Amino acid sequence: MTQPCAVTDWTAEAVRRHIAALCPALEAETVPLATAAGRRLRQTVLAPEDQPAFDRSAMDGFAIRQDDPGPRFRVVDCLRAGDWRPRTLQRGEAVAIATGAALPGPNLQVVPREYVEDRGDHITVRHRPTESFIRPRGQDARAGSVLVPAGTALSPGALALLASVGHVHPLVTRRPRVWHLVTGNELVDPAETPGPGQIRDSNSTLVRTFLAGWDVVPHQLRLPEDEQAARTALQPLQSSAPPVDLLLLSGGASVGPHDFTRRLLEHCGFEILLHKVRTRPGRPLIVARRGQALAFGLPGNPLAHFVCLQLYVRTALLAWDGAPVVPEPWQIALLQQPVQTEPGPYEVFWPARWEIGRRGQIELVPLPWQSSGDLTPLATANALLRLPPQTAQLDPGTEVEFLPASPSL
Amino acid sequence: MTQPCAVTDWTAEAVRRHIAALCPALEAETVPLATAAGRRLRQTVLAPEDQPAFDRSAMDGFAIRQDDPGPRFRVVDCLRAGDWRPRTLQRGEAVAIATGAALPGPNLQVVPREYVEDRGDHITVRHRPTESFIRPRGQDARAGSVLVPAGTALSPGALALLASVGHVHPLVTRRPRVWHLVTGNELVDPAETPGPGQIRDSNSTLVRTFLAGWDVVPHQLRLPEDEQAARTALQPLQSSAPPVDLLLLSGGASVGPHDFTRRLLEHCGFEILLHKVRTRPGRPLIVARRGQALAFGLPGNPLAHFVCLQLYVRTALLAWDGAPVVPEPWQIALLQQPVQTEPGPYEVFWPARWEIGRRGQIELVPLPWQSSGDLTPLATANALLRLPPQTAQLDPGTEVEFLPASPSL
Repeated sequence: MTQPCAVTDWTAEAVRRHIAALCPALEAETVPLATAAGRRLRQTVLAPEDQPAFDRSAMDGFAIRQDDPGPRFRVVDCLRAGDWRPRTLQRGEAVAIATGAALPGPNLQVVPREYVEDRGDHITVRHRPTESFIRPRGQDARAGSVLVPAGTALSPGALALLASVGHVHPLVTRRPRVWHLVTGNELVDPAETPGPGQIRDSNSTLVRTFLAGWDVVPHQLRLPEDEQAARTALQPLQSSAPPVDLLLLSGGASVGPHDFTRRLLEHCGFEILLHKVRTRPGRPLIVARRGQALAFGLPGNPLAHFVCLQLYVRTALLAWDGAPVVPEPWQIALLQQPVQTEPGPYEVFWPARWEIGRRGQIELVPLPWQSSGDLTPLATANALLRLPPQTAQLDPGTEVEFLPASPSL
Repeated sequence: MTQPCAVTDWTAEAVRRHIAALCPALEAETVPLATAAGRRLRQTVLAPEDQPAFDRSAMDGFAIRQDDPGPRFRVVDCLRAGDWRPRTLQRGEAVAIATGAALPGPNLQVVPREYVEDRGDHITVRHRPTESFIRPRGQDARAGSVLVPAGTALSPGALALLASVGHVHPLVTRRPRVWHLVTGNELVDPAETPGPGQIRDSNSTLVRTFLAGWDVVPHQLRLPEDEQAARTALQPLQSSAPPVDLLLLSGGASVGPHDFTRRLLEHCGFEILLHKVRTRPGRPLIVARRGQALAFGLPGNPLAHFVCLQLYVRTALLAWDGAPVVPEPWQIALLQQPVQTEPGPYEVFWPARWEIGRRGQIELVPLPWQSSGDLTPLATANALLRLPPQTAQLDPGTEVEFLPASPSL
């Protein structure tokens, strides 16, 4: 009745490295700035000209010649930001000038308004500062210098910088196309009341909102429990154009008679790369490939889902996106509460909560869980704590390895 | 020609505390789970029943009586997850059972498939484990216990937990309604080529994508430079229903003759709460109020914008959202590179980049900037470094205060 499966020696880290190698950056596309937040830039953007492009006043005040001792000046023009009226100032002449306005010429200084007695058509400088209060051309960046390097995830600030140089359609990695299939005879929609023996489907919500944090909206589908019907339901996947990049299957990844994920993937032409990882939870993971597409058979239990999304699916998303460092490195934190567990041959991933401690030290609180079927730790988890195989106990103050969850809420 | 303005002693921290006090949580609304990621929960959600609601098998295997020594059993039923067929097992009877399926009765144990010789209609248990491999009713949570407390920002995991108990329309804080107005005679659209003396508008992009990180889409408007025309353009704001919560004005916040932000706000019925803060950049900040609505006159320079969005606008957004701790506390980090600056009477906010260091210590790299008109530091800034007044120099290794930027890209 059972299906044979290769028991392998894959560690979580080996799987992550393998996935990173399998997922070259997806093609690039141009998008408008307004929708480019969080997207990965695929070309280095240089300054097309000096920034700023002209000498600008840094204050509201009066431009005068540096070599003009003053203190009395006739006001011969008034420049607002945006005005462009070059002129050669004579001794005794001043030009009223607003913050950001272009200086009328070289070798000037700006005397801020508060140092001046203003009589309308003439001024008297009461205090002559040594500072010029001019933001010279090229102060921020010289033409040709790097403004935003390729590989940058575009923050609001980076986007503002692109806007300032007219780079309004940045070249970024396209988003992956994702299908998410849910299997499980026991599942009902979250809005329904489960009958005896049934439970509500929480994985569809978990996967959908996890992917939303990566700006990906998956095509979600409940698979029929009948294997033949499931194959029929998957036919559109086979012929979809453009092709799907990522196929996630929740549940059915184990080796029981009703666990048809593996057979279904093989039927769809996927090559099974691995089945079972030396971790708890998340042991019966399936990773498969067809051409450039990747498939994950995710163990149906909620904590196993959380762990596999954070460890493996996220690695694929980052690699496809063109992130510079994939897989992400493990971080160090100080454990805040003891951990006690049954020592075993597998690495254990523990839901946890990280925060910045009082002296800038990352602190990690392990969250209680009994079973990979638990959901309550997910209410507050924002990290995965990594316990090496055979760990029995860790005391508070121990340096531990963790991965901050992403999205980071 | 100039407009008098109150020079006050407001520190950035005093402004942040004042804003937090001015912004009680906005009304709550219910939203579907699929769109609730990042939203702030406004009611504590309790477990409506035990979780799980029935004893479930933790393995694929065979359920037998705990008091039945075996080792040979007749297989009398086969239970998949989702099945519900209670029965009283007799000695010598076994029920094949899948992971997640409801046990047929009490006082049973599950023998995993791998410990059993399976002959179809009967089995022989080769190894009898002490563990029961049953996930008992209520193991994860008891009926009535807190699942997700009010005030939680809903992560994918928290949403999955809500889905699992059928809480499919959580009560969350509504998003604020925001208008963003840009002023500045020198500005052209980012897609246009600036004439001499002109620059591209980068603040519209900065504000729009900053707010996108808070799931807010502002109504954005370029204000005419003529003050009377600007008043006319603002008339829809006066009568908009439902009313606008937040009005952001970029530029025109200073005290020059063309800086009409303050007069415009007063014309619209806003009470000016403060004008000028003891910080650099971002000194000529205006904060104003009309009823429950708040307005910020943001100094037009890009770095000043970044600082004011992160310090003040974000505080308002968090307080309106109902976050438990507002304003956010300053965090500690170890400075990685020296900081040298002109000592002055004002606190200085320095664009910086934080990351987790090798031993779990937060490290902060200050980014170079010359002027609040600079944009290049924003390409990589993800934090604000806070320098107390009169700071001249800080050495690497100094403990400094910083605020991680949000959105955190």
